[in-house]
Amino acid sequence: MRKIILDLAVTLDGFIEGPNGETDWCIMDDDMNFNEFLDSIDTIFYGRVSYDSWGTYQPEENAGPEEKEFWDTIHSKNKYVFSSQARKDSGAVFVSSDIAEKVTEIRAQPGKDIWLYGGAGLIKTFIYLNLIDIYRISVHPIALGSGKPLFENLKERLELNLITTNTFRSGVVQLIYESKNK
Amino acid sequence: MRKIILDLAVTLDGFIEGPNGETDWCIMDDDMNFNEFLDSIDTIFYGRVSYDSWGTYQPEENAGPEEKEFWDTIHSKNKYVFSSQARKDSGAVFVSSDIAEKVTEIRAQPGKDIWLYGGAGLIKTFIYLNLIDIYRISVHPIALGSGKPLFENLKERLELNLITTNTFRSGVVQLIYESKNK
Repeated sequence: MRKIILDLAVTLDGFIEGPNGETDWCIMDDDMNFNEFLDSIDTIFYGRVSYDSWGTYQPEENAGPEEKEFWDTIHSKNKYVFSSQARKDSGAVFVSSDIAEKVTEIRAQPGKDIWLYGGAGLIKTFIYLNLIDIYRISVHPIALGSGKPLFENLKERLELNLITTNTFRSGVVQLIYESKNK
Repeated sequence: MRKIILDLAVTLDGFIEGPNGETDWCIMDDDMNFNEFLDSIDTIFYGRVSYDSWGTYQPEENAGPEEKEFWDTIHSKNKYVFSSQARKDSGAVFVSSDIAEKVTEIRAQPGKDIWLYGGAGLIKTFIYLNLIDIYRISVHPIALGSGKPLFENLKERLELNLITTNTFRSGVVQLIYESKNK
């Protein structure tokens, strides 16, 4: 069965954004092998806001070839947008109801793993519905003191099994867990 | 110069306690070598509440020998309690004013490193005064969703340099940083 993987950057104090949406603390190390992760997935799940911000993002014309290739790779994936409002969009399938059933259906289709991109609201829903198989949390060497928490208003404690860790040159430590509740 | 070391357990979402003070999620692994850490320090800094809870704690009579030895070791250390109210206490020196100066003075004395035990208010003060040299954060494989955050109301971002990581059998990952702001 295809796995649903949450992969994102957090600060040491567990925020995915600063109080004003800041993500400037987020480091993309050369040694992070993010391409390997992208190779392992063929589908991305977005919330509506994330999709509108990043799901169709095009780098600036003077961006380097690596950045352009990165976004080409992202945009080559199958995209689903989970939104309370249905929308027709040539680049993505919109899902506006029956999330659990729809996800089960997508997961049963042949293919690679699925990247749960976020944002926070969608992640919360997926945790609540117990739909996440793997958590890949890249802990950045910074505390902000306030911001948007990754885990918020959980209905119950989320217990995880550590699979492995990866340490990068920048001081980012990636903690990879599988869900214990499943 | 003696180092001031913050060593504590946090959840994956950055809490040192649950919303009702819960610390039952906190794991003490055999392979954590906490004794090695205790050997490296000869002084403990407490806030007043932490001192009243743990600074004079005695294990129950039927506790195992390891637990008894642990507390004997803790109580063999020099203890300072940072509290707005001065108090005479046979087991600890109370510091009620001029924290930065007093800490500088203690640090200049010969001796081993110093464990900043907490709680949260004292940690906040020490971060604010830029007095912490080493952060040893044991990230537990659990998210609570709410609780008492380790880092709260920082006056500015706290940037850290990763020194190393230690992974324990239980899935706890210890992240060791040095302060970048110093």
